[in-house]
Amino acid sequence: MSAIAELSIFPLDKGESVSSYVAEAVSIIRSSGLEHEIGPMGTCFEGEWDDVMAVVKECMDAMNNECNRVYMVLKVDYRKGLDNRMKGKLESIKKLMGSD
Amino acid sequence: MSAIAELSIFPLDKGESVSSYVAEAVSIIRSSGLEHEIGPMGTCFEGEWDDVMAVVKECMDAMNNECNRVYMVLKVDYRKGLDNRMKGKLESIKKLMGSD
Amino acid sequence: MSAIAELSIFPLDKGESVSSYVAEAVSIIRSSGLEHEIGPMGTCFEGEWDDVMAVVKECMDAMNNECNRVYMVLKVDYRKGLDNRMKGKLESIKKLMGSD
Amino acid sequence: MSAIAELSIFPLDKGESVSSYVAEAVSIIRSSGLEHEIGPMGTCFEGEWDDVMAVVKECMDAMNNECNRVYMVLKVDYRKGLDNRMKGKLESIKKLMGSD
Repeated sequence: MSAIAELSIFPLDKGESVSSYVAEAVSIIRSSGLEHEIGPMGTCFEGEWDDVMAVVKECMDAMNNECNRVYMVLKVDYRKGLDNRMKGKLESIKKLMGSD
Repeated sequence: MSAIAELSIFPLDKGESVSSYVAEAVSIIRSSGLEHEIGPMGTCFEGEWDDVMAVVKECMDAMNNECNRVYMVLKVDYRKGLDNRMKGKLESIKKLMGSD
Repeated sequence: MSAIAELSIFPLDKGESVSSYVAEAVSIIRSSGLEHEIGPMGTCFEGEWDDVMAVVKECMDAMNNECNRVYMVLKVDYRKGLDNRMKGKLESIKKLMGSD
Repeated sequence: MSAIAELSIFPLDKGESVSSYVAEAVSIIRSSGLEHEIGPMGTCFEGEWDDVMAVVKECMDAMNNECNRVYMVLKVDYRKGLDNRMKGKLESIKKLMGSD
């Protein structure tokens, strides 16, 4: 059983450029040791529910330390009986599309 | 400080109609005692971060008990120095739009 | 066939309080004549795909006129053979939960 | 000015495994010629608003042809004065985090 999460998190009170805050969240995800993949609109990571949600909390805590208002979008795809799904999903999609 | 969360959660392996599963999640949110509001695309509720996330976990656990694959979208708006924001946001928007 | 959309849209370059911008988007949705429902984390509205997406575009255009950076989250639930689903979904959930 | 979109789209009436439908949507995005990046929880692509939204519509039309109920989550980050932002965002985040 594994949860794949995709987290987008940023402050609303720090102006147009928020990349330093986003980088801090991505660093926290990377430090967690969970399998992860950084994307242009959010970072995906995979693990047991409690481990995944602990990382989300750590990201929110770090951002709240420095910001008055924080917005977050979290998507989770939770599925029984499979592990290491993040890579598997991508491979399965690419195979179905035929070679690039 | 308060977190307003909006949770959409449903199974992927139970066919086109998922309302009985959604109703179970909404019941859990209602039982939490947190201020909440049911909408057509998700349920909003408000509280401290840990309280809000405990409700999210309870919803996911209940759905995982019965389903093989669960999808969830969670939006959070977290803001310092204000409470009871859920109603305040709606009132503020409606005031700015003028009377209905 | 109907699409229920839920739109959250706000600027990133206007500071912590974004309610005047949100109110403008909600006004546009209201003016569209589509069935709609304002919530604490977004506004839901229902119609044919093209009508729904025209409203989304109008909201984005209005916000882009005044802002340098705009963030939007749109959820859509599209289903064949049913109309007037926004109210129906809520009623069905509430019936399944038992009386309040 | 450019819009970065992230699209997650899948049927609710086709059971637990939806990868063949997802692959079709990703193929449509790839055929559009827009800069894109496939991720485990959605596909990102970048362009002018109208071009981006035309691709979203094409994905929805294709899925509706075969499915009774389709769910979609679309995030958009729209920003003035910059192009080719999808790669730029990733590079900027990675630079801020230090070398991998």
